[in-house]
Amino acid sequence: MQYFFEHFAVAVSAISGVLAGKDKRVDLFGVVVLALVTALGGGTIRDLALGCRPVFWIKDPTYIYTGTGFALLAFFVSHLRELPNRLLLIADAFGLALFTQIGLEKSLAMDATQPIAIVLGVVTGVAGGMIRDVLVGEIPLVFRQEIYLYATAALIGAALYVALEWLIPAPSTNRLIGIASILVLRLAAIQWKLTLPILEEDPPPSTPPKD
Amino acid sequence: MQYFFEHFAVAVSAISGVLAGKDKRVDLFGVVVLALVTALGGGTIRDLALGCRPVFWIKDPTYIYTGTGFALLAFFVSHLRELPNRLLLIADAFGLALFTQIGLEKSLAMDATQPIAIVLGVVTGVAGGMIRDVLVGEIPLVFRQEIYLYATAALIGAALYVALEWLIPAPSTNRLIGIASILVLRLAAIQWKLTLPILEEDPPPSTPPKD
Amino acid sequence: MQYFFEHFAVAVSAISGVLAGKDKRVDLFGVVVLALVTALGGGTIRDLALGCRPVFWIKDPTYIYTGTGFALLAFFVSHLRELPNRLLLIADAFGLALFTQIGLEKSLAMDATQPIAIVLGVVTGVAGGMIRDVLVGEIPLVFRQEIYLYATAALIGAALYVALEWLIPAPSTNRLIGIASILVLRLAAIQWKLTLPILEEDPPPSTPPKD
Repeated sequence: MQYFFEHFAVAVSAISGVLAGKDKRVDLFGVVVLALVTALGGGTIRDLALGCRPVFWIKDPTYIYTGTGFALLAFFVSHLRELPNRLLLIADAFGLALFTQIGLEKSLAMDATQPIAIVLGVVTGVAGGMIRDVLVGEIPLVFRQEIYLYATAALIGAALYVALEWLIPAPSTNRLIGIASILVLRLAAIQWKLTLPILEEDPPPSTPPKD
Repeated sequence: MQYFFEHFAVAVSAISGVLAGKDKRVDLFGVVVLALVTALGGGTIRDLALGCRPVFWIKDPTYIYTGTGFALLAFFVSHLRELPNRLLLIADAFGLALFTQIGLEKSLAMDATQPIAIVLGVVTGVAGGMIRDVLVGEIPLVFRQEIYLYATAALIGAALYVALEWLIPAPSTNRLIGIASILVLRLAAIQWKLTLPILEEDPPPSTPPKD
Repeated sequence: MQYFFEHFAVAVSAISGVLAGKDKRVDLFGVVVLALVTALGGGTIRDLALGCRPVFWIKDPTYIYTGTGFALLAFFVSHLRELPNRLLLIADAFGLALFTQIGLEKSLAMDATQPIAIVLGVVTGVAGGMIRDVLVGEIPLVFRQEIYLYATAALIGAALYVALEWLIPAPSTNRLIGIASILVLRLAAIQWKLTLPILEEDPPPSTPPKD
């Protein structure tokens, strides 16, 4: 079951990697690299930081196969038709929720303290997309208001799981609550355009702008 | 004492990470990530290269707390008033000097050879800022003349410490000399606009081009 | 002999790193960092993923010396005269072939499965150049059609070596065939402008756009 969820998250992330290459004149190789970096980048940074050796996709090459397969599929489908944006946002929210929970639990299993495990859960959820954006020359989407709450949803869900496990240890129930809370928060953020404040360009925001 | 210095360097770097997000429409999450990457990025690359596992901020989460706390503080203060640039440059010079010396000594303690320890000292001092600049879509400041001598100050100070330790082993005195020399060189570079030569756009700058 | 080839590949990659800094107002320090990142970046990612600790250039500092030396040489020569582009493309093709084969064999020696070893061979061959391009604010050249087949040549040569070793184990002969096939494919790609398909901007390229 977990295996299925992980590969689902890899597939969804791979597709988002392919879409990031649009209008950038990226070729088939670039598309596959963007897909794999998006899908495996977060977990790779987590494993390196924790000192897992080798990293997870070295031990089990099926992650590379799933990522490459869905990248090729998305590449060819995107030549035929526009992929529906709404569907992709929902699938991506599932990917965020699953990767965050997987990263959180793996970090706890490797004896990371709870605050660090929360950080590494969020890293697993969002770092792949950050590297993807840097590779196509963009400031990471996850830093910007226009995608609405994203990493924040992962952070709250991960903290909720840790709090519940501390109150009533019940991993399988709490895991579902953690994943569901990330998913609900993320979809609510898209629906109601929930955002974090941004860093102002001009420090005093109350005076009328230059006239 | 060393603990205090390390956290001071983390705080200063975190603030420089926040400032790099200005005019980039980066939100509160992005600001915290930029701060943490700037503050912890150099030491993370050093630990990964040396094979320290896990990396330093996994073992001691207080680095994450200091970085996040000062990032939030800088975020809110920058909404109220302009941060004084001169003060920041001086604080950043302290950060450069302290991180370089910490990275150098940790690498020597992990049995790196002296030349490699010097390289890893400079990496600890400057790599976090390089990742910060890439994340906001800029060519790293440390590559460019306009900040004046920066990595070069770190390189000279680190080499001086290694040379002194080889001549007269006295770690605590030599450490102070190493840190002070980086600080003085960096502040002198700002004061007198000392720079390295740049890569010319047109190789023969005096002769007329091909005719 | 292998030692000579590795240092030759480092030297060539270092020069390509220097050239990437052209017209970017990069100073002497930036030039050396770009050179070292290009020359050592791919092998570093391979070693980190495999869990080799420390990474290869920590154990043997001569890689840093070769990279820095050729970077300085290229920096000063490029002030005097234009470097011949044709020669550089051929030297770079040698670098790609050698690094890929080295990465492939090291990964197999570390008990990576064959598909993963092929992936890590390609990573060793191309990742340094990817980081170089990101540092100067460009989308990696290796993602784009305009350099013609590059990573694909490395992939085919690495797969050929693995297939030959499986059919007739003869490492030293197969190694030469692997390197030669990457070299020939890459030079053929430059000569006849062979490319991979790119991700289309507008999915349906034949129908008139929305009217």
